[in-house]
Amino acid sequence: MDERYLCQKIAEAVKSVFNMMAGISLEEKEVITSKEEIRGDITGIIGFSNEQTKGSMAISFPIKLAKKTVANMLVSDPESITEDDLIDGIGEIANMVIGDFNNRIENIFTISLPSVVTGKNHLVSFFHDGSPVIISFSDKEGNLLYVLTTLEKIKRR
Amino acid sequence: MDERYLCQKIAEAVKSVFNMMAGISLEEKEVITSKEEIRGDITGIIGFSNEQTKGSMAISFPIKLAKKTVANMLVSDPESITEDDLIDGIGEIANMVIGDFNNRIENIFTISLPSVVTGKNHLVSFFHDGSPVIISFSDKEGNLLYVLTTLEKIKRR
Repeated sequence: MDERYLCQKIAEAVKSVFNMMAGISLEEKEVITSKEEIRGDITGIIGFSNEQTKGSMAISFPIKLAKKTVANMLVSDPESITEDDLIDGIGEIANMVIGDFNNRIENIFTISLPSVVTGKNHLVSFFHDGSPVIISFSDKEGNLLYVLTTLEKIKRR
Repeated sequence: MDERYLCQKIAEAVKSVFNMMAGISLEEKEVITSKEEIRGDITGIIGFSNEQTKGSMAISFPIKLAKKTVANMLVSDPESITEDDLIDGIGEIANMVIGDFNNRIENIFTISLPSVVTGKNHLVSFFHDGSPVIISFSDKEGNLLYVLTTLEKIKRR
């Protein structure tokens, strides 16, 4: 699976899930291949693998966009969103994005459980020998979302 | 796979990897099943899955223990460990723990790529319907390490 094809499918999945689940139109801003890490206030992380390939994806939100996304999912106000709502909502988003991505590539992967990290401006890095791809997205108010995906061929001993 | 068996295998893998890779003896302190989240300064996260089950594991370090672990792995001093060394080292540890765990249960899972989160006292939660297991470990100086693992049966549609 080449990098360009992967980017395209990930971007389609992200836009589709945000639109469907939270009524948020995201615009793809930039594909960054020179960096291996992203920062955010809340991040959903999920792994995927099959016999040939392993990968991971992280979706990092600034807190404002995370609250807006989860509020829209719950048909609620950003001010009334609790930390538990946020964790559940961002985990759900990560799960749906990777599921939608997997659907678009004929479900070749099995998917792990998502984990959610919260902590102001934390850093997410992947440890790997593959090439990471970072895609940034913006909503209409200019809030930025970063999606970091990486794949690695499994080495046989 | 029941919770108790899982705990035992995870604990064995953690102690074996720390001993072998960093010469650190860890003592199992406590198994916590009442919480679903852990905090740390640096965390390695890795997913695993097969056709029936999906899971994730997070290993959260206080910065002092992370530096000591990575310094020992690199046969170096904790003071000379860079942020890049830390990220690589903690990713490697997460990878080896889950690999050792998988070995102990006949390699039934495929493993995703590890990701590493850094940020002082960040929170790691799992989003799931399963039951999470947290095991705490202590080194001889009383530095505490938390390992959060959770498994979930895959629902068929």
